[in-house]
Amino acid sequence: MSHVNSLSDEDFITTFGNLVENCPLVAASVVSCRPFNSLMHLHAEICSFIDELPLKGREGILRGFSMLGLPSLQQTEESRRESKVAGVPELVKSHGTEFNNLNKSYSLKFGFPFVICTWLNKEEDILHGLRSRLHNSPEEELHTGIEEVKKIALLRLKNLVSDDMDSKM
Amino acid sequence: MSHVNSLSDEDFITTFGNLVENCPLVAASVVSCRPFNSLMHLHAEICSFIDELPLKGREGILRGFSMLGLPSLQQTEESRRESKVAGVPELVKSHGTEFNNLNKSYSLKFGFPFVICTWLNKEEDILHGLRSRLHNSPEEELHTGIEEVKKIALLRLKNLVSDDMDSKM
Repeated sequence: MSHVNSLSDEDFITTFGNLVENCPLVAASVVSCRPFNSLMHLHAEICSFIDELPLKGREGILRGFSMLGLPSLQQTEESRRESKVAGVPELVKSHGTEFNNLNKSYSLKFGFPFVICTWLNKEEDILHGLRSRLHNSPEEELHTGIEEVKKIALLRLKNLVSDDMDSKM
Repeated sequence: MSHVNSLSDEDFITTFGNLVENCPLVAASVVSCRPFNSLMHLHAEICSFIDELPLKGREGILRGFSMLGLPSLQQTEESRRESKVAGVPELVKSHGTEFNNLNKSYSLKFGFPFVICTWLNKEEDILHGLRSRLHNSPEEELHTGIEEVKKIALLRLKNLVSDDMDSKM
């Protein structure tokens, strides 16, 4: 990880600032854990930082995400791309009304949007997840949502630390 | 505060996302404290959220700011404007070398940039602050920096909640 470890703090934050959607504070906080031995070490520090946040902060992390399939000013380019690859636009086309209603009910019940690592789920898994997770308790969904955030962060991290960057490690 | 209290979560986060420089998580976290009785109530929730963050997170908040007077990709429009009003460009013109050296020494010693509420300080106060705060302990500077962040957040909040918005409260 010599390349990652040698970045200035500001370059580190700019590079890794959206591993967690709309939450550059995560990168700005874990930068002090350098040097990282590996990409998994960096990811582990991200996960423990998130877990150490007060309840409100973990809910806030989830609120940095947008409702799946709905146009949103706060959605980042990464999220838009991931959503497209996972077939969310097709899902909206085929199950638009149900999908939007489920999404709204979810946000209303839990106070944060439904978060799922779209890269790891096919269209039907996303719809199934939305249908079934709506019945969970707020505690379960905070936990599940945060675990999805961690998976998204790992995939974004792997995507950023490309083969080219890897070879410098 | 009826107007602020009636915003959607996402509109609230978009509106108040930069009260703390580059840290929309703060707005995304305190949105759950609504309804707010007053602007000072909202500010108090921001302050307690920041204070409840783990040490790394409070350091991370400071790292969301840029070094005063240095060009930076991460500097937001608000910060650029505040810096200009405080006369930072003139300060760089007249004391450029000393100013940059002090800034660098500060970041190197503490691991985060020098943060000061430029709106409340004149040119000479900023330079004096930089000179004297460099001798503080890391604990003192984390505390002082965070208190400055809170002042900046209050001024940005007052600036956003304009007379027009006020009249709707």
